[in-house]
Amino acid sequence: MSKLALGAELARMRQAAPLVQNITNYVAMNPMANLMLAIGASPAMVHAQEEAAEFAGFAGALTVNIGTLDPDWVKSMERAAWAANEAGTPWVLDPVAVGATALRRDAGERLLALNPTVIRGNASEIIALAGAGGAGKGVDAGDEVAAAEAAGLALVAQTGGVVAVTGPVDYVMDGRKTARISNGDPVMPLVTALGCSLTGVVGAFLAGGGETFDATVAALAAYTVAGEDAAARSEGPGSFAAAFPDALHRLTPEDLDAKATVEVTAF
Amino acid sequence: MSKLALGAELARMRQAAPLVQNITNYVAMNPMANLMLAIGASPAMVHAQEEAAEFAGFAGALTVNIGTLDPDWVKSMERAAWAANEAGTPWVLDPVAVGATALRRDAGERLLALNPTVIRGNASEIIALAGAGGAGKGVDAGDEVAAAEAAGLALVAQTGGVVAVTGPVDYVMDGRKTARISNGDPVMPLVTALGCSLTGVVGAFLAGGGETFDATVAALAAYTVAGEDAAARSEGPGSFAAAFPDALHRLTPEDLDAKATVEVTAF
Amino acid sequence: MSKLALGAELARMRQAAPLVQNITNYVAMNPMANLMLAIGASPAMVHAQEEAAEFAGFAGALTVNIGTLDPDWVKSMERAAWAANEAGTPWVLDPVAVGATALRRDAGERLLALNPTVIRGNASEIIALAGAGGAGKGVDAGDEVAAAEAAGLALVAQTGGVVAVTGPVDYVMDGRKTARISNGDPVMPLVTALGCSLTGVVGAFLAGGGETFDATVAALAAYTVAGEDAAARSEGPGSFAAAFPDALHRLTPEDLDAKATVEVTAF
Repeated sequence: MSKLALGAELARMRQAAPLVQNITNYVAMNPMANLMLAIGASPAMVHAQEEAAEFAGFAGALTVNIGTLDPDWVKSMERAAWAANEAGTPWVLDPVAVGATALRRDAGERLLALNPTVIRGNASEIIALAGAGGAGKGVDAGDEVAAAEAAGLALVAQTGGVVAVTGPVDYVMDGRKTARISNGDPVMPLVTALGCSLTGVVGAFLAGGGETFDATVAALAAYTVAGEDAAARSEGPGSFAAAFPDALHRLTPEDLDAKATVEVTAF
Repeated sequence: MSKLALGAELARMRQAAPLVQNITNYVAMNPMANLMLAIGASPAMVHAQEEAAEFAGFAGALTVNIGTLDPDWVKSMERAAWAANEAGTPWVLDPVAVGATALRRDAGERLLALNPTVIRGNASEIIALAGAGGAGKGVDAGDEVAAAEAAGLALVAQTGGVVAVTGPVDYVMDGRKTARISNGDPVMPLVTALGCSLTGVVGAFLAGGGETFDATVAALAAYTVAGEDAAARSEGPGSFAAAFPDALHRLTPEDLDAKATVEVTAF
Repeated sequence: MSKLALGAELARMRQAAPLVQNITNYVAMNPMANLMLAIGASPAMVHAQEEAAEFAGFAGALTVNIGTLDPDWVKSMERAAWAANEAGTPWVLDPVAVGATALRRDAGERLLALNPTVIRGNASEIIALAGAGGAGKGVDAGDEVAAAEAAGLALVAQTGGVVAVTGPVDYVMDGRKTARISNGDPVMPLVTALGCSLTGVVGAFLAGGGETFDATVAALAAYTVAGEDAAARSEGPGSFAAAFPDALHRLTPEDLDAKATVEVTAF
């Protein structure tokens, strides 16, 4: 059982109902907005170079996802991340398939240099981003999540931020402690953009104002606990996708504290 | 009870099964197409500068939404709206978060100058578009819908068109009369892009050939009456999103006339 | 009853779990990814000019869809198709509304010249692509599928590939034989992007490694047999959209062989 106040983080986020700017991929935009609304945040998809930085100056958090990138979008991502840093606004990097092509590796490097508050990716992506040569096939995880811990710690050392490696078991690390979250359901990887959408939920919890490590763990736990609820009420990936927003909306702080399976190890 | 022939407007639209061109945002494209198909229209998402105006010349209506704009898209929007005006084709403006950034304010001004047949927005957006300084936070409504009536009337006077201000209660005004539509359900703002998608449904009803005011009121009433039906069959925003197309598809002209709560005030 | 080993094609595709690159339209990206995941493939949406060709060099198949094209995207499509041809990778063309505007006709011609392994479209699109002057209205089918057979055979002769004409009845032709697939449900055209998503499923079956004609027929049969299952469990287009991924995920090779209604005519 966790000693983190996960339910309190959820309540804090909902009280803030934070405006979160997302520069994300075309596949994720719709489910990400829906899942963020369902849990209690206020998402805005704002990516144009002419407004991305301006918007990041007043958003509660920013998330940046390179899933369907092109060079113009990468410029917007850099400008927005820079503006978020200037404003002291937390921002989350989601390095989708970062090892797959030269364009992605370059975008990953540029964004990493801007020191994201949180990086959330699967094991392959975290390994590739750390330059450790992940064996990722496209956007799917090709490594055990646990094996990415070393890469995650290297990224923590480089950015000073928090790294979340998600998969069948999720790991969150800040260099002093690591949380291991064991909730979730095997149907979740069969629904597209659930990882991308989780990045938005992490942004919402950061904007809620909690400590970065605690807020990130709470976001992952809330998402996967609700995923278990939705999976119990569905018969496959399509009915799960319809049930999941309901479950996020229904999730109470008490449910989260009762059902989250989180172990924290301090170094 | 309404004296408008709402059911007849729905039947007329379905009979026409109109081709409606939508230049809309990335979040809305999929649900908008699905909801327009469900109620009986034929949506087409066509935005390239090289074809937007050509397509607007033969579509039954055009809708323009600035939710995820950039300067190239704004050029397409202007060209398509200009072509629609040339062809005598009705078009609808959806000024998403128009007050949030300089890029949006500029786009709103440019499109407003092309005199949209109908403008549909939430209270904050209508106030911002009228230059009245709305207090909108991103894409969410921050003002009471009723308070936007003055701004709406100013836009009516400027464009000669119809303005629809949507929220818990919807208002449609043409300068001579105002309709107040009280249907809908609180779950609807928890599903992303339902306002944007409604803009497409308004376009479909305009393309059906009715009088602009009546067609706009019928579109809003059909959408919110179906929303009540869907809400009664669902348990949260995800199951609502799955139930809503079914409800729009099932809605009969008789249901619409029986369940719509519309009051019209003439000046 | 079919003499093709449809179930074996499905099993082979699932065994491969192929990475399929899709350059598709904004409306289709999300449902296409979900439906491809549901049936057992690994979709990746990769379109930037800077990476599209690189990615096509290691993907198992490529699909190209012109639904929401612009000139930059067409360049990416050409580069990716060229790279797929160089690598001996199968690729599928989906000529959405190809007859509607000059931009689309030009894109269709350019892509056709690259000899797609399979072309999948509705009757109007196949006729327009063959230069036969289809009477298509936007993205909807305006001709009987059967009437497109001549156009399809002309495209087969030109490209040396396979052509699939989909509608209430689907036809697949390779110049030596034609398959007629009679599965499916009338609710399917009421859900947006189901044709586009089918193109992705065809790509997955091609990447599975079967013979092109057989793999294409198997993809269409699997999709429409699962569609019948989903329709039997739903009450309209919204509940169908939620039930369809479940049905694709649940479909077994045995179900496919038992329920597919496929007639093959050899010339």
